[in-house]
Amino acid sequence: MKFIIIGGDAAGMSAASRAKRNKPEMSVCVYEQTQDVSYSACGMPYNIADAGRDIDDLVVRKAKIFREKQDIDLKTGHRVESIDPVNKTIMGLNSQGNKFTDNYDALLIATGASPIIPDVPGFDLPGVFALKSLGDGRKIKEFLSSETKSAIIVGMGYIALEMAESFHHRGISVQMIKPRPQLLPWLSRNLANRIQNELTEHGVQLFDGHPIEGIESFDNQLKVISKDISLTGDIVLAAIGVFPNSQMAKAANIKTGPSDSILVDSTMATTENNIYAAGDCASAFHTVSKKQTWIPLALYANRGGWTVADNVCNKKKYIPGVLGTAVFKVFNLQVARTGLNMAEAKKFGFEPVEMVIQSRSRAHAHPGSGKIDVSMVGDLSTGKLLGVQMVGEEGVAHRINAPAIALHAKMSVEEFALSDLAYAPPFSPVWDPMLTAANQLLKKMS
Amino acid sequence: MKFIIIGGDAAGMSAASRAKRNKPEMSVCVYEQTQDVSYSACGMPYNIADAGRDIDDLVVRKAKIFREKQDIDLKTGHRVESIDPVNKTIMGLNSQGNKFTDNYDALLIATGASPIIPDVPGFDLPGVFALKSLGDGRKIKEFLSSETKSAIIVGMGYIALEMAESFHHRGISVQMIKPRPQLLPWLSRNLANRIQNELTEHGVQLFDGHPIEGIESFDNQLKVISKDISLTGDIVLAAIGVFPNSQMAKAANIKTGPSDSILVDSTMATTENNIYAAGDCASAFHTVSKKQTWIPLALYANRGGWTVADNVCNKKKYIPGVLGTAVFKVFNLQVARTGLNMAEAKKFGFEPVEMVIQSRSRAHAHPGSGKIDVSMVGDLSTGKLLGVQMVGEEGVAHRINAPAIALHAKMSVEEFALSDLAYAPPFSPVWDPMLTAANQLLKKMS
Repeated sequence: MKFIIIGGDAAGMSAASRAKRNKPEMSVCVYEQTQDVSYSACGMPYNIADAGRDIDDLVVRKAKIFREKQDIDLKTGHRVESIDPVNKTIMGLNSQGNKFTDNYDALLIATGASPIIPDVPGFDLPGVFALKSLGDGRKIKEFLSSETKSAIIVGMGYIALEMAESFHHRGISVQMIKPRPQLLPWLSRNLANRIQNELTEHGVQLFDGHPIEGIESFDNQLKVISKDISLTGDIVLAAIGVFPNSQMAKAANIKTGPSDSILVDSTMATTENNIYAAGDCASAFHTVSKKQTWIPLALYANRGGWTVADNVCNKKKYIPGVLGTAVFKVFNLQVARTGLNMAEAKKFGFEPVEMVIQSRSRAHAHPGSGKIDVSMVGDLSTGKLLGVQMVGEEGVAHRINAPAIALHAKMSVEEFALSDLAYAPPFSPVWDPMLTAANQLLKKMS
Repeated sequence: MKFIIIGGDAAGMSAASRAKRNKPEMSVCVYEQTQDVSYSACGMPYNIADAGRDIDDLVVRKAKIFREKQDIDLKTGHRVESIDPVNKTIMGLNSQGNKFTDNYDALLIATGASPIIPDVPGFDLPGVFALKSLGDGRKIKEFLSSETKSAIIVGMGYIALEMAESFHHRGISVQMIKPRPQLLPWLSRNLANRIQNELTEHGVQLFDGHPIEGIESFDNQLKVISKDISLTGDIVLAAIGVFPNSQMAKAANIKTGPSDSILVDSTMATTENNIYAAGDCASAFHTVSKKQTWIPLALYANRGGWTVADNVCNKKKYIPGVLGTAVFKVFNLQVARTGLNMAEAKKFGFEPVEMVIQSRSRAHAHPGSGKIDVSMVGDLSTGKLLGVQMVGEEGVAHRINAPAIALHAKMSVEEFALSDLAYAPPFSPVWDPMLTAANQLLKKMS
């Protein structure tokens, strides 16, 4: 039994480790095109923020450990280029330029995602970067110096925002530009406005609704050009999003789903026998919409790797749906979401009602309290909770897990409103902001 | 229709306000024995910690507002002394020493709880206090001065611990003593030990297993005497627990339940017609054990008040069970629980299995991470989650709400382990500590 894994980050190495734990006698081989495996990609903005920290601090487990302690045949510098599902082989090219082939009994495609680079001139200029792999992070860190005074970030998603804070932390002024209008269009307006203010207060300049025509280099600086404005900076970061690395899978006639992600079922199996996909290249089932979706996030990658390993080892395991539960930090704000927002809920045929409230992070009269904004969406026809978003200085990141569990449990807004949540003055009002939102939403729904 | 409420704190004033919102024409009369209504009792330790803050900052809504804006007939300084359920009357004594009587159509008993005072000499000495009412807090605050150098706290429950921090914050050294052995016996041992270390590191001395024989006064100080040791301090706080104020209800032939709390059904109705109870004097249905219990906490008091008001106004409302979800702060630690611990689970006939893990509050390599200890209890026979406890420097207070929702939803440990929780490096490892606990517990249960 030979289990081959293409890709050595979260999903790939989770699968490899778990397969060896499940069946130590199994032959497990991982092909990774770079030299980096098993690192915390999400930690890169925070590492880049601190010039004194080595980017390799983000490596969770070294290649040597996988090879020597876990008996995983980990081949770094090996880029798999094609899959032949009929003959159960893979073919590729290693970093020495040599071709290689291998045969599998089971295959996991964990090729991740790649940054979207706008198809306009100049994104290949020196000083223009994307941030997805540890190699990207390393290059940015090597580029940054005391001479770097200004950064232009193309995109305003959560990685773009984390990088805005990261640059700001290093004393680099930040301008952000994106082709489409609105900061965080998926976020309820009140909540997005609060983030906009937070960015502005930290001197970050926002230019939304400006399609990029190209980047030019002059005078040792870079100029990001759009129709009506052009921004000048020492470094440019392209952070407008990622796309799943599904080209090789498609070439092997494996079906793709939303956003061209590799379609998987609840065992993480693709449409081809004995071929699985997991991580940022794979689709996911959304628990609330009950539709396939593509939400590339770390926990799903790790859990997907485990699920594949268990199924490859004949321990039938099903992965439950995702909710898109996510949190990120922007300067002093925590931003979190789970489930569907209004637009998504409408798209999926619900009868959504939204309540947006502002409450406080601590009890009445308790010092140090901050504002928490909550958007809660319920379904008028069934009474069910559909999604929650929150923004606040404190207590948002972990609060979001409660409605996430409620969505898994298909709770109604009323059931959620009646739940027994924790209260102590330093941590919450008696009525937690989520309960206040639920109580108000219930009134609106009745 | 006349609705009479005995007691003007959380449950009583919530009920009064909601009844007037529901039915503005209803006659609502509240009898409160003190002059204080609607205050944040839980905030008292934090207020006492700060000599510069007025204790009346804790008043959420002033009597004047209830009377003038909400048209509630609020009678402070009126102590109700007996209830006659047959004639639907109450009788009492006001602060001027005058007797009063009144007739109700519906009655809410919201008499709260009182501190347990050990039946040994000396607890009535000047300088010996309890802390339950705002009046208690006021007296303590008036007593404390720059001359107060040392405090002895009798009891080690969460109010005792909050007050230890409060005294410490004012530069007062703290000794704590309790009759029975063990700090926080309801907490999993690893977790309790961490709290013990935290207290010790802050100079708090703990003496458990020392039955108190009395308190004596000498040399302007107080001596708390037990068989083998005696502790000397400038102030003594009795914080060994509270008991429900159910004496008057019992005298009116209303049935009581666990810990002598007034037995209520899911509409908060007592065993007597048209008489309800809510707040710290009332029993509660425990969602996990499916038994009546008595857990006097603020959210249940407020929610109970609402439930009574709705039922009095013929909007049939049911209050769901409680989980005993609670959180408190001890110096730099957050301590939280929801559901049953091992001993409780055994007592209620489950086949409990406990997993205790230690994880981190932030991602691998993210600076500022602290340890989070999690105890998770599952039921071997059904696979259900039964309870969770957590201790850590950050991220514990709100994390506990996720398993609370899971307990309401009667989730299995496996379902919880597969849930989509939030992850970002500043807030959590990829596998949230609760997921790690659930994954490990699952292994132990399989």
